[in-house]
Amino acid sequence: LDRYAVEHLRHFAREVFRRHDVPEDDATLAAEVLTEADLRGIESHGVLRLGAYLDMLSSGRVKARPEITVVGETFSTACVDGDNGLGLVVGPRANDIAIKKASVTGCAWVSVRNSNHFGIAAYYSLQALRHDLIGLVMTNTPPQVAPAGGAERRLGTNPISIAFPGETEPPIVIDMSTSAISFGKLEQAHRSGSEVPLGCGIDRDGRTATRAEAILGGGALLPLGSTEELGSHKGYCLAAMIDLLCGVLGGASWGPFVPSFPLDGHTPERNVGLGIGHLFLALRIDAVTDPGSFKRRVDEWIHVMRSTVPASPQVAVAIPGDAENNAGHQRRTSGIPLPPSVVADLRKIGTVTGIPFD
Amino acid sequence: LDRYAVEHLRHFAREVFRRHDVPEDDATLAAEVLTEADLRGIESHGVLRLGAYLDMLSSGRVKARPEITVVGETFSTACVDGDNGLGLVVGPRANDIAIKKASVTGCAWVSVRNSNHFGIAAYYSLQALRHDLIGLVMTNTPPQVAPAGGAERRLGTNPISIAFPGETEPPIVIDMSTSAISFGKLEQAHRSGSEVPLGCGIDRDGRTATRAEAILGGGALLPLGSTEELGSHKGYCLAAMIDLLCGVLGGASWGPFVPSFPLDGHTPERNVGLGIGHLFLALRIDAVTDPGSFKRRVDEWIHVMRSTVPASPQVAVAIPGDAENNAGHQRRTSGIPLPPSVVADLRKIGTVTGIPFD
Repeated sequence: LDRYAVEHLRHFAREVFRRHDVPEDDATLAAEVLTEADLRGIESHGVLRLGAYLDMLSSGRVKARPEITVVGETFSTACVDGDNGLGLVVGPRANDIAIKKASVTGCAWVSVRNSNHFGIAAYYSLQALRHDLIGLVMTNTPPQVAPAGGAERRLGTNPISIAFPGETEPPIVIDMSTSAISFGKLEQAHRSGSEVPLGCGIDRDGRTATRAEAILGGGALLPLGSTEELGSHKGYCLAAMIDLLCGVLGGASWGPFVPSFPLDGHTPERNVGLGIGHLFLALRIDAVTDPGSFKRRVDEWIHVMRSTVPASPQVAVAIPGDAENNAGHQRRTSGIPLPPSVVADLRKIGTVTGIPFD
Repeated sequence: LDRYAVEHLRHFAREVFRRHDVPEDDATLAAEVLTEADLRGIESHGVLRLGAYLDMLSSGRVKARPEITVVGETFSTACVDGDNGLGLVVGPRANDIAIKKASVTGCAWVSVRNSNHFGIAAYYSLQALRHDLIGLVMTNTPPQVAPAGGAERRLGTNPISIAFPGETEPPIVIDMSTSAISFGKLEQAHRSGSEVPLGCGIDRDGRTATRAEAILGGGALLPLGSTEELGSHKGYCLAAMIDLLCGVLGGASWGPFVPSFPLDGHTPERNVGLGIGHLFLALRIDAVTDPGSFKRRVDEWIHVMRSTVPASPQVAVAIPGDAENNAGHQRRTSGIPLPPSVVADLRKIGTVTGIPFD
């Protein structure tokens, strides 16, 4: 695969966003969030999606120049209206508010409505870490998941992210959807024509399905836990919590009514709120403990978990974020590998916008 | 089964705690938390455990008269040291601090160390609801769960709870362990001699196990998600998040070093912190939205989820907390059924303390 420096992809994305009337600062931010996904090896959320974001801007589905406003606040909370801007811009702005407020009062809660897909959730928890804050981040997403015991899509894959700083160890980074598999993995199986494991999805009649087509074509993903016996109600609880906090609480859409991300997606049958909702929670570490000793304890926690007797002798127990941290380390120096189809898409965007990709 | 009024059980538990040198207010609180579990149908966490709490008090393992102190605070955070008191007392006191602080600044974060088992997590999120706050509650617990890919116990079943108020509907109450099944279910299988589902546990050699004896006898529970294919790394991430927030951050014990609940449990090989740790997070609903309209939206959310096409035609999709809310409703009027073995235990406690149970 051809490899591209992250700076190159970031520059290209920024210029292309600008050409779509996104203000310079916002374009820089959006390009940064987008390429952070490629850097961390979460290709499904990276420049692969640039075209989809541009389509939404071109069609007016998403505003290039939103007026992001704080519609209500207290000392340590804010409710932000993203004015239907790019989630890649609304997200970082709202996260900054959480970081600033937490720096003053110790912890802060920022609810966001009227936003759109905000990229990888880990971008935000990692931003908080840079300020010695712990960031807990959630977002609701378009309906792809059946509630436990249900046979149709009613909830998003609703991810959650949080990160913890080590002293000499790289940070622990949790970033997970609350369904058995993410929508990205389902899409990947669809593209490659492979099946997903039993327990990840159902078809349009509510029967267990492993073919991506059956799950995508009117079926649904299953919540984390997969079956009643193994705790699918718990995955459902997590998705519900995130939908209630991100959607219902702050006045965004929720459940089956969350608007879809790509243009060719479903149209919600009812309008129950404004766009997609996020939650950014930030805690100043030094409000609770000395950050230096905390980081040393996190290192120790990492060492203890790594030393767990493994189930397979050859495979050591991993720490959340290991794979992504390693990808980031490698890709920062040797570039980001892009499959030919993605390169072709980016070249096409380059031709249309007059900003050459290579 | 014989049925007992909740007031009767509460009175008995309070008097027995008092007889164990617990101050009156604390005894009232501990009895309330304990019997809330019986009321909500979570018998494993109710008066069934009274004897274990008393043993810990009698042996001096837990202090009857702790000096609970705030060891650090900011406008919207506090770090509480429970002085090795009953979790049933330290928990409510710390939760009150979160509620009070959130009432002033909008949201609050209270980290607790040096505590012990605090009863059902839902008690605390339901307390927050009474003040029109959303409470997010977590605790770490003694090691029973293997990290994903691991063959030994390194993490607790680390539960999380949050509750949302309806207007005419009863509240949505989430209270779940982050393992495939809770330790309570494993104990239940052990008592009844039945097996647990495939995917819930492993034996001492890291092999899949369904016999409770094999899991209890040197084996481990598995994280929510059960297998790598179905997302066991996600259950591991959740347990890790809770352990890091409740244990490592606030200075409590963590991972394999969390002290066990009953007297006959394991002794941690190392001392890495003080007792068990909790996190109480509280958000004033009116800091984000109008509480009245929020409750109406929650009702609507409930109706939409209930109307999901069910996988089995006869079994409607449930709302988190349905079973417990129903149990509470029924048991408040018709009493709490107790099996003969529990009644015998309570009578024995009555004889020893001179406080007759019946």
